[in-house]
Amino acid sequence: MTQIAERPTGTGPADPTARATAWFDRFEAALRARDVAGAAEQFATTSFWRDLVAFSWNLTTVEDRAGVADLLTATLDGTDPHDFRLSEDATEEDGVVTAWFEFATATGRGRGLARLRDEDGRLVAWTFLTTLFEITGHEEPRGTRRPMGAEHGAQRDRRTWSEKRQEEAASLGSTTQPYVLVIGGGQGGIALGARLRQLGVPSLVIDKHPRPGDQWRSRYKSLCLHDPVWYDHLPYLKFPDNWPVFAPKDKVGDWLEFYTKVMEVPYWSSTTATSASYSEETGTWTVEVEREGQPLTLQPTQLVLATGMSGKPNWPTFEGQDVFRGEQQHSSQHPGPDAYRGKKVVVIGSNNSAFDICGALWENDADVTMVQRSSTHIVKSASLMEIGLGDLYSERALAAGVTTEKADLVFASLPYRIMHEFQIPLYDRIREQDADFYARMEAAGFDLDFGADDSGLFMKYLRRGSGYYIDVGAAELVADGEVTLAKGEVSHLTEDAVVLEDGTTLPADLVVYATGYGSMNGWAADLISPEVADKVGKVWGLGSDTPKDPGPWEGEQRNMWKPTQQPGLWFHGGNLHQSRHYSLYLALQLKARFEGIATPVFAQAEVHHRS
Amino acid sequence: MTQIAERPTGTGPADPTARATAWFDRFEAALRARDVAGAAEQFATTSFWRDLVAFSWNLTTVEDRAGVADLLTATLDGTDPHDFRLSEDATEEDGVVTAWFEFATATGRGRGLARLRDEDGRLVAWTFLTTLFEITGHEEPRGTRRPMGAEHGAQRDRRTWSEKRQEEAASLGSTTQPYVLVIGGGQGGIALGARLRQLGVPSLVIDKHPRPGDQWRSRYKSLCLHDPVWYDHLPYLKFPDNWPVFAPKDKVGDWLEFYTKVMEVPYWSSTTATSASYSEETGTWTVEVEREGQPLTLQPTQLVLATGMSGKPNWPTFEGQDVFRGEQQHSSQHPGPDAYRGKKVVVIGSNNSAFDICGALWENDADVTMVQRSSTHIVKSASLMEIGLGDLYSERALAAGVTTEKADLVFASLPYRIMHEFQIPLYDRIREQDADFYARMEAAGFDLDFGADDSGLFMKYLRRGSGYYIDVGAAELVADGEVTLAKGEVSHLTEDAVVLEDGTTLPADLVVYATGYGSMNGWAADLISPEVADKVGKVWGLGSDTPKDPGPWEGEQRNMWKPTQQPGLWFHGGNLHQSRHYSLYLALQLKARFEGIATPVFAQAEVHHRS
Repeated sequence: MTQIAERPTGTGPADPTARATAWFDRFEAALRARDVAGAAEQFATTSFWRDLVAFSWNLTTVEDRAGVADLLTATLDGTDPHDFRLSEDATEEDGVVTAWFEFATATGRGRGLARLRDEDGRLVAWTFLTTLFEITGHEEPRGTRRPMGAEHGAQRDRRTWSEKRQEEAASLGSTTQPYVLVIGGGQGGIALGARLRQLGVPSLVIDKHPRPGDQWRSRYKSLCLHDPVWYDHLPYLKFPDNWPVFAPKDKVGDWLEFYTKVMEVPYWSSTTATSASYSEETGTWTVEVEREGQPLTLQPTQLVLATGMSGKPNWPTFEGQDVFRGEQQHSSQHPGPDAYRGKKVVVIGSNNSAFDICGALWENDADVTMVQRSSTHIVKSASLMEIGLGDLYSERALAAGVTTEKADLVFASLPYRIMHEFQIPLYDRIREQDADFYARMEAAGFDLDFGADDSGLFMKYLRRGSGYYIDVGAAELVADGEVTLAKGEVSHLTEDAVVLEDGTTLPADLVVYATGYGSMNGWAADLISPEVADKVGKVWGLGSDTPKDPGPWEGEQRNMWKPTQQPGLWFHGGNLHQSRHYSLYLALQLKARFEGIATPVFAQAEVHHRS
Repeated sequence: MTQIAERPTGTGPADPTARATAWFDRFEAALRARDVAGAAEQFATTSFWRDLVAFSWNLTTVEDRAGVADLLTATLDGTDPHDFRLSEDATEEDGVVTAWFEFATATGRGRGLARLRDEDGRLVAWTFLTTLFEITGHEEPRGTRRPMGAEHGAQRDRRTWSEKRQEEAASLGSTTQPYVLVIGGGQGGIALGARLRQLGVPSLVIDKHPRPGDQWRSRYKSLCLHDPVWYDHLPYLKFPDNWPVFAPKDKVGDWLEFYTKVMEVPYWSSTTATSASYSEETGTWTVEVEREGQPLTLQPTQLVLATGMSGKPNWPTFEGQDVFRGEQQHSSQHPGPDAYRGKKVVVIGSNNSAFDICGALWENDADVTMVQRSSTHIVKSASLMEIGLGDLYSERALAAGVTTEKADLVFASLPYRIMHEFQIPLYDRIREQDADFYARMEAAGFDLDFGADDSGLFMKYLRRGSGYYIDVGAAELVADGEVTLAKGEVSHLTEDAVVLEDGTTLPADLVVYATGYGSMNGWAADLISPEVADKVGKVWGLGSDTPKDPGPWEGEQRNMWKPTQQPGLWFHGGNLHQSRHYSLYLALQLKARFEGIATPVFAQAEVHHRS
């Protein structure tokens, strides 16, 4: 730590920048001396070091001094961390010194965020985030490194950009093979494809739809993003500042299509993967695909499933589904309300999709019943924006200098183990602010929850990816009785109705199963084999020992964006925020392997659950 | 001036922020007192006030105290300028205090840049730029004002974004009329269309090509932008930071197509305007168009010609053109070199297009001769980037806080009258730095110039829009004799050759006329009438009394982005920088008229030349 921020720092021993600088000096001195115990001593008794690829070639969180010592014992020599420097002045609030920093490793350059506090009269690290952001010698061609485009000078038989792009497209999959095959070309696959393109890793994204963005276009017509624009940017190219807060799905679809083109992501539409198998011998995959109906074999080294973090649709089994004369759909298949004006529709489920679909059907004069089978967490969109996201992702945050990139790192710096502690007070505020609304919902008989420990929406999302509704208006329809609320488990279907276990009979022309999705390794079971799906195990969740997220504690999201138990198999996805942020770490892991850089994985996660 | 910058200012009487603040206090006091003479006294004996719409509803530059008094006498009451405040600390260099400021008018809010210096012991304004950036009550829906997108709540028969867009597209031109019709959908038309869309002015951009961006795609295949990326951004949505410095034409085409859709610019492809006439009685245009072959009549109030600042191609007349058996093309029609491998090509002209075409032909093994008829100004692209643009448009500029928006205002703040004085030293440096290159060109017999007053490329561009080559490599081919250089006027064509006046015979399979373009009012002659074309007169140029830019001095570019002598007729275009920056002022003028806001035009330009 030879250099501190360029901006002038305060003075005196209490200055947070000086204190943070001194902490990094001590920490780096211990690291340079390979003094693992000394480095661990710089952490608090209860502390969390989250590393995204920089030390561990994994996404991992270690806890307390013992965990720090484990991480460093395994990784210190190989990582050779050095040149820690504050990237801006540190700040102090409520006894916590917050310090943004940069550092270098044997392989690349990293960025981090530390929260330091006093313990027994010493400043020690409480939370510590380290992330790799580029590999030395493989920096992305951006900004001062951007490509020239025109090649000045005169060259016989020069090929233009357009000709080179055409040649590349023609050879990909025939005379050249992608090193990485990404299956699924929604926001996740596209964001990863863009990063791999930037990093010069030969890649291909395939998707079953005719055009990029159809993943959104094909959803029900009233769908808008439930997350606000500031949270939703893709890498490299931000939405313009006239972009709607909650973008309509077709607009998102158009953006994804053009993004794919602008970022020059190699992308095959109308392509499905029908099978994949891994050769231990060659370390490559054989993937059978159908491209516009034509069979083709691809031989990638790395296979990324980006087919939706929600995994395969759960189609529930009820007696009488075969005798029901009306229409049955999973929510993912629902085309929107137009065809159902005046019809009786029963929607099984009471989470996001169920509410969205009920609302749009009601708006189009359908007779709608929602069947609630278990409690649901509801947060009004405006409250979520204001209280849940506003400090990190909003115009207010931007005005305060919290760019999307910074917000992503702040978010990433909160250890999953204690994240609920930060969340609970926010949802307490929301519950108080919207008390009338919640009272109306309960008066209507709707079963509400705020998560197992009252930690609200984000924790539910991270733990199970389900169980909530971000209210954009449809909840009031249930409160008002405009959408009929029924409760309980489904017993069976008749020719023209859904019958609940308590005998309630709900006449139906259409039944929509808003019954959620299975684990993403279900895709691997279909595409590769049940054995491989079992080997990698459940995808998503933290091991929080809350509903749908069984323990033991994982520390990170299961199998997402990091090495799995199946060599060469990766899972990628999540919302737009995760697709943006975590695609970087997955891309860097793939890039390192492509370049033959050693990537010793620290603390490869064990598998505890199959699904 | 009740408020100054929020950032702490320096201390003492010499502090530039304090001095600038005091100047604005004096200036505003005079304005508030409607003391024209007192306000004019705040300007230097030799001074320049450039106003973009804010005071004058025109683009105009007045000079010296008398000019300032003229402007204020005509506009002060109506404009009611007030609340001038520095938007950041002022700086001082070489005795010039530079101050960024904001202000309000009766109509809207403005931004400006002042350069103040001492004269007779008083700080007075030397250059003064005022620009309107928004109209009060009609602020753009951006940032904190961005649209919500999703309409929360439940509404019967809600229409989605996609449905509304479809309805709007279906009604435009049939049941609804555009207030503004923009003819020409290249970068200029698209940028203006985006601004008008943002401002809520019902508009339509039409273009003859099948897709937005085809204006670029259809050019010769090796074409890349000659201006670097930092100079080329469109409004609202900047190129990502991996965008090439000099983007290939097809990539630019894709971006324009993407941009048009993302910005929701109402745009009809495959549409040509066949005639237009103005009714003095109704104050509207009747424009006959053919949309995909179908005739249609539009009734816009405002008609913008954005058909290319270069105007109509100049097709020179030579004896023997009818007997020549080979192919003849204007440079704008040249398809690229592929079909001409091994052929003899004579390119008439020695400016940008001529060099680009000669270079690409040579690269594809054509036998190429360039015919130089008059001297050409050549600047190496790298030198232009470094010395000509680097302070304003580069990574270096960005790192120094000079955003594109600031750079545009800095550029706009340099009065045309003295701009050459700023330019000459830059080109002196370039001439010195590239002395070897220029010597080689002259040794090859090439006639070089640096503009009438050695002021180089920008002044040539602004004065005449021609007469130069930004060298990206083809100049060396002429220096080396790889491209044959011939000099002199063309006498006539034979069956198989071009013959120069000195008798030189140049055998040719293809003759390319890289002979430039006429004035944009040529489009008006064809579309409207020769009378209207003559009434508005020559478009482009400053009246600098240099070749192809006859006097008298205009002060601003003729007829561009400002009211013309024909009510409801406007010209828009130029390079990407101008399309970006000046589209704002044109859009605000159109918006004000659409809203019925008074727009008294100060110093409407007289017409001195027909073409």
